[in-house]
Amino acid sequence: MARVGIGIIGGGYMGKLHAAAFRAVATVFETDLRPELVAVCASTPESAERYRARYGFQSATPDWRDVIANPSVDAVVVASPQETHAEITLAAIAAGKHVLCEKPLAVTVDECVAMTDAALAAGITHMTGFNYIKTPATQHALSLVKDGAIGDVTWFRGEHTEDFYADPDAAATWRTEGRANGTMGDLSPHMIQCALAFMGPIASVSAAIDTVHAERPDGAGGRRPVTNDDIAHMMCRFAGGQTGHLMFSRIATGRKMGYAYELFGTKGAIRFNQEDQNALWLYQSDGAAANRGFTKILAGPAHPDYWAFCQGPGHGTGYLDQIIIEVAHFLKAIAAGTFAWPDFRVGLAVQQVVDAAWTSSETGHWQTVAGHDATPSKASSA
Amino acid sequence: MARVGIGIIGGGYMGKLHAAAFRAVATVFETDLRPELVAVCASTPESAERYRARYGFQSATPDWRDVIANPSVDAVVVASPQETHAEITLAAIAAGKHVLCEKPLAVTVDECVAMTDAALAAGITHMTGFNYIKTPATQHALSLVKDGAIGDVTWFRGEHTEDFYADPDAAATWRTEGRANGTMGDLSPHMIQCALAFMGPIASVSAAIDTVHAERPDGAGGRRPVTNDDIAHMMCRFAGGQTGHLMFSRIATGRKMGYAYELFGTKGAIRFNQEDQNALWLYQSDGAAANRGFTKILAGPAHPDYWAFCQGPGHGTGYLDQIIIEVAHFLKAIAAGTFAWPDFRVGLAVQQVVDAAWTSSETGHWQTVAGHDATPSKASSA
Amino acid sequence: MARVGIGIIGGGYMGKLHAAAFRAVATVFETDLRPELVAVCASTPESAERYRARYGFQSATPDWRDVIANPSVDAVVVASPQETHAEITLAAIAAGKHVLCEKPLAVTVDECVAMTDAALAAGITHMTGFNYIKTPATQHALSLVKDGAIGDVTWFRGEHTEDFYADPDAAATWRTEGRANGTMGDLSPHMIQCALAFMGPIASVSAAIDTVHAERPDGAGGRRPVTNDDIAHMMCRFAGGQTGHLMFSRIATGRKMGYAYELFGTKGAIRFNQEDQNALWLYQSDGAAANRGFTKILAGPAHPDYWAFCQGPGHGTGYLDQIIIEVAHFLKAIAAGTFAWPDFRVGLAVQQVVDAAWTSSETGHWQTVAGHDATPSKASSA
Amino acid sequence: MARVGIGIIGGGYMGKLHAAAFRAVATVFETDLRPELVAVCASTPESAERYRARYGFQSATPDWRDVIANPSVDAVVVASPQETHAEITLAAIAAGKHVLCEKPLAVTVDECVAMTDAALAAGITHMTGFNYIKTPATQHALSLVKDGAIGDVTWFRGEHTEDFYADPDAAATWRTEGRANGTMGDLSPHMIQCALAFMGPIASVSAAIDTVHAERPDGAGGRRPVTNDDIAHMMCRFAGGQTGHLMFSRIATGRKMGYAYELFGTKGAIRFNQEDQNALWLYQSDGAAANRGFTKILAGPAHPDYWAFCQGPGHGTGYLDQIIIEVAHFLKAIAAGTFAWPDFRVGLAVQQVVDAAWTSSETGHWQTVAGHDATPSKASSA
Repeated sequence: MARVGIGIIGGGYMGKLHAAAFRAVATVFETDLRPELVAVCASTPESAERYRARYGFQSATPDWRDVIANPSVDAVVVASPQETHAEITLAAIAAGKHVLCEKPLAVTVDECVAMTDAALAAGITHMTGFNYIKTPATQHALSLVKDGAIGDVTWFRGEHTEDFYADPDAAATWRTEGRANGTMGDLSPHMIQCALAFMGPIASVSAAIDTVHAERPDGAGGRRPVTNDDIAHMMCRFAGGQTGHLMFSRIATGRKMGYAYELFGTKGAIRFNQEDQNALWLYQSDGAAANRGFTKILAGPAHPDYWAFCQGPGHGTGYLDQIIIEVAHFLKAIAAGTFAWPDFRVGLAVQQVVDAAWTSSETGHWQTVAGHDATPSKASSA
Repeated sequence: MARVGIGIIGGGYMGKLHAAAFRAVATVFETDLRPELVAVCASTPESAERYRARYGFQSATPDWRDVIANPSVDAVVVASPQETHAEITLAAIAAGKHVLCEKPLAVTVDECVAMTDAALAAGITHMTGFNYIKTPATQHALSLVKDGAIGDVTWFRGEHTEDFYADPDAAATWRTEGRANGTMGDLSPHMIQCALAFMGPIASVSAAIDTVHAERPDGAGGRRPVTNDDIAHMMCRFAGGQTGHLMFSRIATGRKMGYAYELFGTKGAIRFNQEDQNALWLYQSDGAAANRGFTKILAGPAHPDYWAFCQGPGHGTGYLDQIIIEVAHFLKAIAAGTFAWPDFRVGLAVQQVVDAAWTSSETGHWQTVAGHDATPSKASSA
Repeated sequence: MARVGIGIIGGGYMGKLHAAAFRAVATVFETDLRPELVAVCASTPESAERYRARYGFQSATPDWRDVIANPSVDAVVVASPQETHAEITLAAIAAGKHVLCEKPLAVTVDECVAMTDAALAAGITHMTGFNYIKTPATQHALSLVKDGAIGDVTWFRGEHTEDFYADPDAAATWRTEGRANGTMGDLSPHMIQCALAFMGPIASVSAAIDTVHAERPDGAGGRRPVTNDDIAHMMCRFAGGQTGHLMFSRIATGRKMGYAYELFGTKGAIRFNQEDQNALWLYQSDGAAANRGFTKILAGPAHPDYWAFCQGPGHGTGYLDQIIIEVAHFLKAIAAGTFAWPDFRVGLAVQQVVDAAWTSSETGHWQTVAGHDATPSKASSA
Repeated sequence: MARVGIGIIGGGYMGKLHAAAFRAVATVFETDLRPELVAVCASTPESAERYRARYGFQSATPDWRDVIANPSVDAVVVASPQETHAEITLAAIAAGKHVLCEKPLAVTVDECVAMTDAALAAGITHMTGFNYIKTPATQHALSLVKDGAIGDVTWFRGEHTEDFYADPDAAATWRTEGRANGTMGDLSPHMIQCALAFMGPIASVSAAIDTVHAERPDGAGGRRPVTNDDIAHMMCRFAGGQTGHLMFSRIATGRKMGYAYELFGTKGAIRFNQEDQNALWLYQSDGAAANRGFTKILAGPAHPDYWAFCQGPGHGTGYLDQIIIEVAHFLKAIAAGTFAWPDFRVGLAVQQVVDAAWTSSETGHWQTVAGHDATPSKASSA
């Protein structure tokens, strides 16, 4: 079993989870490549060393260039703040490393284009960290739709809603500053990617992006303006002619992990809610009318990537598991010399939708998404 | 116990249900007024007589003018096709009858204005047949929101989705012809009324209204064009500054009675789905974080108008019961000499939103709703 | 349309609901017989007159013998306290009336035998008031099981749980005195009947019947002993060899209308909970493993007795509706000159199970149910 | 950070999962001890070597004695067939190793007693592999009950139901032979342990244990007798005087991971179903009656052992995670020099209940559980 050296840049939340995932993945999936945790980078020497010791890396550094320069590192996980994604990723590609870059791929569309072009030109394995698309239930849903189980899809509704800023008295932080850290910038990408995966490209959008709580306590007795958005939603027209709606919120009281979607088709329907990630609801229009309804399918060995975790259905996977699946796909792509879906092109496409939504919200008009026809096909309006 | 003579115009679906409701209401609610089923009108003498015999009316006629002219009739239910609502209702008002008019109040805003003006001028009891707002669960939800149980509401999502035209091979009928019979015309009013009840006026909308299946079998081996819409949805800005989304579909495969709404507030959240009309889901942000979540409240005697049906909670009300509650409110208003909420003004307000949605869908821009500021308050956009 | 004169003995809770049901039933179901509310009997002249006026009866009396002697009364509903069921019912049968007797049929098995024998000899239409078995969902479930949709049933679990005495400080009343008013006496019959309907006869039981709160406040500052049971449960062996479990409680905190059952079969499974009476959950073992699960079937026109209430699925029936269905079945049986299922024989069979459970709880042994083999078939024990 | 050498005996299902858990645990929980996967034992040299390579162990052997004799091994996981648990565990204890033994602790009560006595005498850290009790939701439920959140518990219902033998045509294997591999022997221990954790000791039981499908295809065209049980259930009286019911089945069609429990108390109720392991349903009897109901609490950082996996609530843990938590508790106990709950005493107590159930099923009487009063306290029977 060959080794693959892993470097992780960013030792916080997503860095830790990727470290844990890389430690477990070869045992869980019995992969051809066995990852070695070679190097971790964090903002200070002290924090980097702490992460090294706790997560089980061989070396630590406060300088991401050290990770990229390390000849034992074959693949890099970019889990640093989003404004650093482009520079680090471009350097890693230049050094011939494979790259798994956290979402959003970058802050601007231009950065995303540069990263995608470089990755394609270099022929490395690249992946954007859309891990929610990797649950067994959602992978199964994608297969069902692709295989026509619900006929032609006519409607997609998606949301990513959480409530970590629902309380108007929650203090302002870096999260309430800058577009990239707002709801549209930080929360929307996972679900936009989901919509693209199920429906194909989005041709145009009409969006409304709002800051509901315009200022918040600054933690020092005063008030500080909030400079990014709390709620964003958009009507979509897909390139295939269908319609849909996407909604994002960080003030959706009661919603904890509201990555949820619903599709209606000519022969069936599907719905899913990440808060119960082991259940997929499927309706099919065949059989006796008296026995039709939504079927609650529990994730099990009949679904993609479940078997490795458990031989019995209904036992369930969790958040860490979807990251283990993600890195398993990354390792498999490295071994095969291919891209790892969702690769950088997907990360770029997502960012183009984010851009169009901002424009639409500012103009009050429908906005064509970059790369799509200025007059997208629209179903006839009575 | 005084009597009140009831005439019902339209013996079909809603006519029958109102007849059954009027037969039961005085026993269920022990109302001050006891309704007598005086006259029923249907399209032919034969059908009218059949309804008379089956539903227990005293007389039958194919001419709605007979019902209005009947001195024993004190109150009229207008359950005839929507294009007849205005003429019949105006005549009934002119004859001094109280009127319960089915939704939509009329086909055009102008008709609604005329009916509302006439009803207000005459001082009769008037009501629009928005019976879904009458379930004990939804009445309780309205109280909760009014009383601040979820704080300031920041978002409303509503839908009315069914699937009776989900099959592209379902034949064209009168239902697939004419705006008034389409999704926006026929299906949207209940949920628009619901949004207004919870949130107050809608100031502007950005809508998309689509015919997905442009032609259907004509039942004679050919194809016939569909001249109204299958799906409609709109982003809303409420006069209070909040945002929301409303969606309507008759091709929402798997959805049978998808009258559903969701509100997020600064201190809590509420959601409801008519398919389980006896459950209201309430989230409140107080108490220990470890014990927070959505509470499934079963309708019971602690909620409006439930006690009359059952002394025990959780036994449940059904579709007929919400109409019994509706007519109980109508009788109570007659006895009190007041309007019966939702009165004609509400029916008019709903129609104004429908109109604005059509305009927006045609222009591709946000459209101000009649009677509202051309530049509705919009939360600051980052 | 012929008339049928109805007398109701007992003007309280169930009396009112039957009155409302008889008022609505001919309109809802367009029955051949149209009921007339002829006479109501309550404990005092004043209460009887109040019920007469409120519920719409023609006459009132404090003496049930008047109702039975009234030649305009064709059918009697016995909704008086259970200890009076036998005497009243036997008198009504002797007078040639049809009888719908509330559950439990009577207090003792001997009374039930006498009533059943008399009813069968007289050839009148008789029915026991097991109205929960009449919901469209449960009627459909019975059909599914009968038609083999879940194969051979191997297990039945039923419960009827409520929480009206969950609070140990709830005061003692007549409900906490006397076996007939306890959990086994008053709450268990509906679900025992349900078990019999799905599974056939129960051959033997092992039961445990307990009073958890041995005394309660007497409402006058003191304490009063509780003389009946709070919780009862039993393991069953059905005559067909299957096993099951039945559980009853009036202290099941949080359960409001916990009439719920679950069946496992060789080819599928069914579960139902009256708290969401419009949903039936069906699992079938055919089709692709990846798409199997419990299907939530919403009650609709494809199910027994739903169409009369609503032409669209998912709109829902409620508690009153199941009583309307019950009296529709009663009227139909009168018109046809047959028994109305569940007839008195079922009421008797239920009481025999109640008796056996008491004996088992007292002896600590399995107890054969009257009429069944002393050595019921038992599946082989490894 | 100190190391701890791990040896795993049994390379199959549970062996793999423990290997993966030990690989990830130090990163996830940042434990004081960092496990090293020293040795794995499987039935043949070839399979052992395969597991070594795939799971990442340092050495492999077909002889469990090698693992115990290995001085680099500090702690042993016994995941071999249950009939080998006693011998291996006793040898490991004699060698001074810490032991995590899979459930059931052993085949007989006598073996369990010997293992427990030896472990206590040696002072090693011992644990029985009841990993379902380790989900954040169930750990929180235990805290709630202990802290009185639902008052005095009056009823416990538990089940462990799956459907891997629901099909009567599923072939006979080792699983259908021998008591230890049947439903009572193999499936019941997890839920019995759960009942003991919530309620304290079970004093007596009345059980029914059945083989529903007495023979099955032998895979060679013939039929083979089934020599163990398909369904088992029992009524319980707890030492504290409460009652309850436990049910186990391997033919519960549609149930995939039916580890589920329900408790009613004087002030609230709790229910849980492992098929949605991230939701705990809590009812509390305080607050306004109009707003009471079961609250669906999503597992989150406010609950035990969740934070290590994810900083956000509602993201969910899965089956592997409950094993990671289990081994984290094991490591923590080793570091602290204590027992790891549920230790061997719990494994023994579970086996005593299993034994009593068998006796009860054979005699048809209530059976006292070893170590409890022959006349357990019984609530007064009316």
